[in-house]
Amino acid sequence: MLEELSHKSKLDFNESSPDARPRVAICVGDVAGVGPELALRCAADLGVISRCQPIIVGPVDALRRVAAELPLGAANGVDLTQYVEHHAKDWINIGNLQAKSVVPGTFTAATGQASYDAVNWAIDAAMAGEVAAVVTGPIQKEAWRDAGICFPGHTELIAKRTGDDDVRMMLTADAISCVLVTIHLPLADVPGALSIAGIVRSIHLGGEALSKRVCGNVRVTVLGLNPHAGENGLMSHGEEQEIIFPAIMAARREGLEIVGPVPPDTAFTPSMRERTDVYVCMYHDQGLIPLKAIAFDDAVNVTLGSRIVRTSVDHGTAMDIAWQGIAKHTSMLAAIDMAVDLSSNTYRP
Amino acid sequence: MLEELSHKSKLDFNESSPDARPRVAICVGDVAGVGPELALRCAADLGVISRCQPIIVGPVDALRRVAAELPLGAANGVDLTQYVEHHAKDWINIGNLQAKSVVPGTFTAATGQASYDAVNWAIDAAMAGEVAAVVTGPIQKEAWRDAGICFPGHTELIAKRTGDDDVRMMLTADAISCVLVTIHLPLADVPGALSIAGIVRSIHLGGEALSKRVCGNVRVTVLGLNPHAGENGLMSHGEEQEIIFPAIMAARREGLEIVGPVPPDTAFTPSMRERTDVYVCMYHDQGLIPLKAIAFDDAVNVTLGSRIVRTSVDHGTAMDIAWQGIAKHTSMLAAIDMAVDLSSNTYRP
Repeated sequence: MLEELSHKSKLDFNESSPDARPRVAICVGDVAGVGPELALRCAADLGVISRCQPIIVGPVDALRRVAAELPLGAANGVDLTQYVEHHAKDWINIGNLQAKSVVPGTFTAATGQASYDAVNWAIDAAMAGEVAAVVTGPIQKEAWRDAGICFPGHTELIAKRTGDDDVRMMLTADAISCVLVTIHLPLADVPGALSIAGIVRSIHLGGEALSKRVCGNVRVTVLGLNPHAGENGLMSHGEEQEIIFPAIMAARREGLEIVGPVPPDTAFTPSMRERTDVYVCMYHDQGLIPLKAIAFDDAVNVTLGSRIVRTSVDHGTAMDIAWQGIAKHTSMLAAIDMAVDLSSNTYRP
Repeated sequence: MLEELSHKSKLDFNESSPDARPRVAICVGDVAGVGPELALRCAADLGVISRCQPIIVGPVDALRRVAAELPLGAANGVDLTQYVEHHAKDWINIGNLQAKSVVPGTFTAATGQASYDAVNWAIDAAMAGEVAAVVTGPIQKEAWRDAGICFPGHTELIAKRTGDDDVRMMLTADAISCVLVTIHLPLADVPGALSIAGIVRSIHLGGEALSKRVCGNVRVTVLGLNPHAGENGLMSHGEEQEIIFPAIMAARREGLEIVGPVPPDTAFTPSMRERTDVYVCMYHDQGLIPLKAIAFDDAVNVTLGSRIVRTSVDHGTAMDIAWQGIAKHTSMLAAIDMAVDLSSNTYRP
C-alpha cells in the first residue's frame, strides 16, 4: 500500500544508483495559509517527482493536520494523509509550533516565526550545497512583523543572509517577464531610490536570466518612472533624463538590445509585449500590475543576482480559502519547474 | 455623384424637419499625427452619421491634403477627397496653418497651436450649447509646449476653461474602467497630492458614470497607493490608513458599495475585474497600465465632473504612422459613441 503511494518506486528509480534528481527545498510559507496544501500537492505531483527530489520544509505535525483536513481528491487521487506518513521522514521539521493551535486562515506571531525559520534553514542548506534550489511558499508579512522579524520579504532576507546584497526580484511567465529596480518601498521613496548603477544591474540580470530562454539577442524594454515617461521633463523631476536614459546608454555600450525609457502606460500593449523579452520596471506595482493582470496563474518569482537559486509563487497566503483544497497550485508547480531549470542551468523552451 | 457620397441623403433624413441628431464637435488633434485621418474616417462612418452630426474642428485645408494623400479605400470605399469637398462647409476651420507647410509625422509649434485653438473653440461651443459634446483627437503635448501653452493635457484645460476645476479623467472600455485621482503629475508628487476629499469625489464621479451602464449597485474598487496597499504601514508612509481608508468610509456612509484599499498588483486579476465596475486609481499609470494592457484598442477617455460632455481617444498621435491610412479608428469610434450616449444621457448596453 505504502509502496503504491511512493511515486519514486512507480517511476522505477534504481535504489542502488545515486539519485540524479536535484534536491529542491520547498518552504511551505505561513502554515495558516494555502502554502502547506500547495506544497503537499506539488510534492506528490508526478511531473515534479520525475524532475527533482522535493524536500518539504515546515512544521510537519501541522502538515499532517492540513493533509487530514483537505477534501479527498485534492491531489489527483493521492491520499495526502498516507503520503505525509510515508515521506515525512525525508522532510525538514521546522518550528516549535503546536499543530493543534493553528487556526486555518488565522496567522499569528508563531506561524510567522515558523515560516521565517523554514526559509532560513533552506537558505543555509542551499549555501552549503545540501539542496540545489529553494522554492518558497507564500508568507504573511504581518506575521513576520508580529514575530519581530523586520524583513519586508524573502528577497531582502536572501540578500542579507547570502551577502549578495544587490539582488533583484523578477516575475516571469511565458507571456511576460518583469525585473524590478526597487521592490518593497513606499511609493514616495521610489524616485529617490533610483540610481544609474541600480538600473544597469537590473538590465544585466534581466538580460542574463532571459538569455537562457530566448534565441538570439534578448530584447529589453526599460520603463520610465513618470506618466508618459516624463514627456521630456513636462511631467517629471528629470528622472528619465538624468538616471534612466544614462543607464540605458551605459548598458547599450555593452551590446545589449534595449528600448526605453518608454511611457509606462503603453509598455504592456500586445504589440509591445511581442517586441519585449524582459521589462525593467522602476517599482513594484509598475511591473506586478500588468504581470498579474496578464499571467496571474502561472507567474514565478525569481531572485536574480544571488549565489543560491530561489524561486517562489507569485501570490499571497490567500487566508480566506486556506486548507480547503481549492487553491490552485499552478504557480508553485511553475516555481518548482523553474527552480530545477535554473539549478541545472538548462531552461526548457 | 456628390449626392451619392452624402450619407445624410442615403439615410433619407427629411430635410424639412429639424435634425434630431446631436451635433458633436470632433477636434482633429495634432494635424501632423493620425488624428485627421481618424476624424475623417469616423465622420464618414455610417454608424456615426446615424447617431450624430459630426462637426470636424481643425485646419480644413490641411484636412484636404490628408484626404488626398490617404490610400484609396482607407474609409470603407468612401472617397475622402470628395467627402471633404462636400462636407467642409459644415466644419469649423481653425488655425492659420499653411496646409502645405505641414510635414506628416513632424509636429511644430504651429500644429500645436492649431490643435489647442480647435479644442478651445469646441469647449466654447459646448458651453454655449452649440454642440452637445466634444470629442478630442490626440494632441502632441510637446507641440503645445513649443507653442507656449502650459496645460499638460485636455482634461486640465477643460477644468480651467469651464471653471469646473475638480474634474477627473476616466478611461473606460467594456472590460475595465478606471478613474484617476491624480493625472499628469510626476510620480514623486503623487503621495502629497492625495486628499480624502479628492478620493471621495473620484469615487462619486466614477460611481455616477458607471451607474448609467450597470444594473443594480455600482461596484467600486479603490486601490492603495503603495505595494501591497502598504501592508498595514510596513510599506507606506501611512497614506492608506490616513487618507484612502477614511475616504472609503466617508463614501460608504452614503451607500456606495466599495472595496478597498486593495493591493494594486492583484486588483486587476480576472477574478477581481469580474467583481469591479469601476476602479479608483491613485495615479496615472496605476490605472492606465492595466487598462491599456487589457483594452488598448477600444478604450475611451472621458472627462467626469465637467458641465460639458467630452470624450477622447486613449492613444497618442502615432507620428510614425501618420497620414498612411493604417491607424485604427476604433478608439475614436468608441469615443464618439460614448459622447452621444452621455449627451443624450442614455448609455446603450
